[in-house]
Amino acid sequence: MRPSGRRPDQLRPITLETVGINKHAEGACLARFGDTHVLCTASVEERVPPWLRNTGKGWVTAEYGMLPRSTNTRTDREAARGKQSGRTQEIQRLIGRSLRAVTDLEALGEVQVRVDCDVIQADGGTRTAAITGGFVALALAFRRVQARGLISTIPLIGQVAAISCGLVDGTPVLDLDYVEDSGAQADANFVMTDSGGIVEIQGTAETTPFAQAEFMALMELARAGITDLCAAQATALAATPG
Amino acid sequence: MRPSGRRPDQLRPITLETVGINKHAEGACLARFGDTHVLCTASVEERVPPWLRNTGKGWVTAEYGMLPRSTNTRTDREAARGKQSGRTQEIQRLIGRSLRAVTDLEALGEVQVRVDCDVIQADGGTRTAAITGGFVALALAFRRVQARGLISTIPLIGQVAAISCGLVDGTPVLDLDYVEDSGAQADANFVMTDSGGIVEIQGTAETTPFAQAEFMALMELARAGITDLCAAQATALAATPG
Amino acid sequence: MRPSGRRPDQLRPITLETVGINKHAEGACLARFGDTHVLCTASVEERVPPWLRNTGKGWVTAEYGMLPRSTNTRTDREAARGKQSGRTQEIQRLIGRSLRAVTDLEALGEVQVRVDCDVIQADGGTRTAAITGGFVALALAFRRVQARGLISTIPLIGQVAAISCGLVDGTPVLDLDYVEDSGAQADANFVMTDSGGIVEIQGTAETTPFAQAEFMALMELARAGITDLCAAQATALAATPG
Amino acid sequence: MRPSGRRPDQLRPITLETVGINKHAEGACLARFGDTHVLCTASVEERVPPWLRNTGKGWVTAEYGMLPRSTNTRTDREAARGKQSGRTQEIQRLIGRSLRAVTDLEALGEVQVRVDCDVIQADGGTRTAAITGGFVALALAFRRVQARGLISTIPLIGQVAAISCGLVDGTPVLDLDYVEDSGAQADANFVMTDSGGIVEIQGTAETTPFAQAEFMALMELARAGITDLCAAQATALAATPG
Amino acid sequence: MRPSGRRPDQLRPITLETVGINKHAEGACLARFGDTHVLCTASVEERVPPWLRNTGKGWVTAEYGMLPRSTNTRTDREAARGKQSGRTQEIQRLIGRSLRAVTDLEALGEVQVRVDCDVIQADGGTRTAAITGGFVALALAFRRVQARGLISTIPLIGQVAAISCGLVDGTPVLDLDYVEDSGAQADANFVMTDSGGIVEIQGTAETTPFAQAEFMALMELARAGITDLCAAQATALAATPG
Amino acid sequence: MRPSGRRPDQLRPITLETVGINKHAEGACLARFGDTHVLCTASVEERVPPWLRNTGKGWVTAEYGMLPRSTNTRTDREAARGKQSGRTQEIQRLIGRSLRAVTDLEALGEVQVRVDCDVIQADGGTRTAAITGGFVALALAFRRVQARGLISTIPLIGQVAAISCGLVDGTPVLDLDYVEDSGAQADANFVMTDSGGIVEIQGTAETTPFAQAEFMALMELARAGITDLCAAQATALAATPG
Repeated sequence: MRPSGRRPDQLRPITLETVGINKHAEGACLARFGDTHVLCTASVEERVPPWLRNTGKGWVTAEYGMLPRSTNTRTDREAARGKQSGRTQEIQRLIGRSLRAVTDLEALGEVQVRVDCDVIQADGGTRTAAITGGFVALALAFRRVQARGLISTIPLIGQVAAISCGLVDGTPVLDLDYVEDSGAQADANFVMTDSGGIVEIQGTAETTPFAQAEFMALMELARAGITDLCAAQATALAATPG
Repeated sequence: MRPSGRRPDQLRPITLETVGINKHAEGACLARFGDTHVLCTASVEERVPPWLRNTGKGWVTAEYGMLPRSTNTRTDREAARGKQSGRTQEIQRLIGRSLRAVTDLEALGEVQVRVDCDVIQADGGTRTAAITGGFVALALAFRRVQARGLISTIPLIGQVAAISCGLVDGTPVLDLDYVEDSGAQADANFVMTDSGGIVEIQGTAETTPFAQAEFMALMELARAGITDLCAAQATALAATPG
Repeated sequence: MRPSGRRPDQLRPITLETVGINKHAEGACLARFGDTHVLCTASVEERVPPWLRNTGKGWVTAEYGMLPRSTNTRTDREAARGKQSGRTQEIQRLIGRSLRAVTDLEALGEVQVRVDCDVIQADGGTRTAAITGGFVALALAFRRVQARGLISTIPLIGQVAAISCGLVDGTPVLDLDYVEDSGAQADANFVMTDSGGIVEIQGTAETTPFAQAEFMALMELARAGITDLCAAQATALAATPG
Repeated sequence: MRPSGRRPDQLRPITLETVGINKHAEGACLARFGDTHVLCTASVEERVPPWLRNTGKGWVTAEYGMLPRSTNTRTDREAARGKQSGRTQEIQRLIGRSLRAVTDLEALGEVQVRVDCDVIQADGGTRTAAITGGFVALALAFRRVQARGLISTIPLIGQVAAISCGLVDGTPVLDLDYVEDSGAQADANFVMTDSGGIVEIQGTAETTPFAQAEFMALMELARAGITDLCAAQATALAATPG
Repeated sequence: MRPSGRRPDQLRPITLETVGINKHAEGACLARFGDTHVLCTASVEERVPPWLRNTGKGWVTAEYGMLPRSTNTRTDREAARGKQSGRTQEIQRLIGRSLRAVTDLEALGEVQVRVDCDVIQADGGTRTAAITGGFVALALAFRRVQARGLISTIPLIGQVAAISCGLVDGTPVLDLDYVEDSGAQADANFVMTDSGGIVEIQGTAETTPFAQAEFMALMELARAGITDLCAAQATALAATPG
Repeated sequence: MRPSGRRPDQLRPITLETVGINKHAEGACLARFGDTHVLCTASVEERVPPWLRNTGKGWVTAEYGMLPRSTNTRTDREAARGKQSGRTQEIQRLIGRSLRAVTDLEALGEVQVRVDCDVIQADGGTRTAAITGGFVALALAFRRVQARGLISTIPLIGQVAAISCGLVDGTPVLDLDYVEDSGAQADANFVMTDSGGIVEIQGTAETTPFAQAEFMALMELARAGITDLCAAQATALAATPG
């Protein structure tokens, strides 16, 4: 029995809220994976970074942050410390790569979308909630780009979502919360598309090296979880007007 | 007629939500002044800054931040730029001074409370919402300090709230939203206690110097507004269990 | 009786020296408010910040610094610490806003004047000496801009000066020195024009909230003080050749 | 045929040089994977980071850097830019985790070993060379810790090595050089122990999502490669006196 | 004929003013070498840097800065840029070494003196004025240390002063001003004691390498100049009460 | 007898290796002065810094760094600390000036060469090895600039090399290693051309001021040493193909 009472293959309650989240952003999604709440906004700019100018290609990038008291014990504010931690940079690079993996940057044209993922409350799995909600915000922002007449079709080649899995007390479990994450022997984050393509895999042995069979068990759990997350994304997008 | 349809002396809809806002913080309040939404959390530490060690006195401090897309046009993330702007520092110093003005630091003992005010969505008046909501978060955190047995009574000597006023098209108006703020000839932020004491006044001529009579008119508007805000704080605190 | 032997409404000895202060700057003024000495220089550039290019408008900005041993106890050098404190940024933003409030930026044309206010010796009221002396340096720099043929008239719509007031042992007093400032219950900085217009008001309760009547008493003291400061500015400008 | 003329499952020429590399470091290894040359040094300190003091546990950490002209086009020096890139931080965190995965930190006692991995020349796969050579430097440093009498046995629970694999023109290949890396559809870095345990897996779809079968093919290549690398480590260690 | 009308071996008018310069500092000297004006203050702390604690030895260190408009064209404020330039660091290290060369750090005991050298107006030779005036400030501060009873004798083993020389149009000249400095083929800064001992020599060929005989001619000029500067120091110290 | 067994006027074994050092750089030299090993690479860019654009002139600049464990005790990585030390900046400025002193920047045209000097292992005299090896890297890079047809002749007006000397136990000695450097009463670095011209002299009294005759003795040692270093440079360049 998991601390939360979930079955090993059970996701936490997932909500992807898009309406009334942010009145300024071109796309917004408040992703909740249980008590992990990540606010994702997508901001459109009609200019690209210097290295893409005059190439006809667009760009999607991401930034990640945690509110100081999103965590159990208050974390120092990165703006006050004067730099982003290695963990923050690692996560925001991962989010950016994941979103670009399903975007047709050529079709987007010289437009940049910045996806900000800010953790309002953390309980494990913030990067996976950020990717899953960030995709929804991005897709909504593309609708606006289309509405402005900059593109004729939405430049997405699929959906992308992410989930964590881990070995806890020898059992492979899906969607770790903070308590499980802290005690896991190994954990892995999987970023996959709705058609099952692998975008990113990051597996780490926390205490002892793990076996290939264990890794495969984690991947199977992830596949099922991502199917559910992609369904939730589709539902959220369908339910969002405009 | 104001852009929002409000009367000159009318606040925006104010809500101070405290339940279900943050499961980690000792005190939390989501302050909404119309479309300005500021998430305030109070974090308790049983240690004080170096200059207060062994003095028997406590400390209250504040930090302020804006999510990048809380604003109409995306603002660069301060953590990514590597420093907090002058505006950010000015605001967080103001919040800290305001909260300390109603705290009996001697009675608090060697405890520090950090109040984080993060703007989720901005539409003018973020610093006044931060102070007003920050007070609620602080008061709730003091309940926890009391529950831990560190203090016998809540070390507050009153309530503190804040509101902005401004001269817009020659008319003194209360609680400016972003559109009014951008076009105001002058604006002023008033921080006052529930008993009418002045804690901070910051008045600025945006376009042309203003007259003393105009300034007095702004202060009168502020007084009435702060009375309402203090009532809302009292209601929120009364409704919060624990 | 005040520690300095002054009457409550008495300024410290004020001098605004402009000749032989700095051979490089387009305008310079060494402002002395008693033992507070601030060296103000104004530097002209025939280019404006990016957001003003091709608008036909000019800009006035200010920077503030304290020499490390301008203070009673040595203060760390901000250049060595690698950043300006929140206090420094707050003050330099105030100086800049104050000077812009009396400048006709349209009439200035695409010229920028930077006013540097460096505290050589501090004894309370450095920001007010900086604004008062900074105005003189700015006015002198405008003469040079005129002499270069860039403008036909001096783009000033009035004079601006500043003074502090405070409640010390229950008495409202003018132009606080460091000893008074440290012990004041409340203090306020007033920035006003020679015609009595209010440019900035910053009032802070240091120990306990204060009453509106007390605040009004401070403002009356300030008005009289600023009249004297504006007279001193006019005398200094009239006495400066060129 | 690969650009280098190698078979798909063929490593580049691997050398792990330990003698005459650095006269100061407690352990040193110059790891060469073809034209990728990484200088690894291990430095012993008889103190641990604050969070481990008085726990009886030791620590192993890593730092990574590239000489500016280790790359084909000169890269700006991170010390001159004033911060380490996200990529640098990501890599040095990976190296540290990998080395800790085979270290018995309890057995090490309150000793810290810092492993510096500096890229002298880069041609793809710098992080895998850093982990592989870093392990050798670490193992040699542990000999010194033992010689000082701080530990009785070498606190290693196995060897750890790393290799990259990728899909290039649809073919899974081992140990990508820079040219292959730039054109790969997907690449993955595998960190494994000499007994086949998985320590870290990082797989990324560079251009399009990839299939599970493709990923498994990469893992098989990696397994064989890591077996060879561990053999090379053992040989290098055996050949190092002291 | 030099631009200033001076003979090749002629110093600029030198003044070392110590009275009424700074009311806070334990020692102060405004050094003027012609139009180069450097304000030197010495600050005493009864604690030493960590590496000297419990050694019984003291420390003397220096910091250097230029006011933004001390220069002909305004220089960016280092505090605003967030770092000290290489030139600034080079100069402050030189000043510190020079002052330590004549201080008996053992005799000083565990006291630190910080000498701040701030350039109010620059016209060449700021580092030499800083060393020469810094020595006076330091010597005055030692009197205070003695008066506090921390030391029985002044811990100086001599005087130290500095001067620049250069080859201008083929002629060796003493004490270069800015115009000469800009056009010199070579220049050198000499730091020497009152008994002729060499403390520091820094010679640089600005345009073409120079000959040993030329260098020796510069050193001879410097010797004579430093004799005069040491006399001026002695006079200033003798004239300073206390 | 010196600790190394060398005669007072004897250099350490000097090697200037240019082949197989770095496959990317336009010029490379691994300079070894005994156990001091500095890797110098020269990188060519066909653009110059902003202040030289459209002047027809080129630029040569240098950067310097030490690998963390190049030193006996590990030194913090400057990239991790977020800034270059004053010592680093001082040294890289010296290297840059020295190399420019023998370069005809007009003849170079609008090309910039950056010389990176990274200390792989330190045993005293790193800056002199950096200048001596940096010259070789620069000269080789100029061959490439010539081969690209950007210049018709090599824009060098001579060779430049550097060596340290010092007073150790009262004896003037050449080319100090770390042990000698730590105990020297005085040391000096000399940068000279192959024709005996002085480019830079930096002499410092470490413990007590020194006499002119002592300084002259150091310079004579340096002259002889630099003659040998220039011969070694010439040999290395002659032996490098291309």
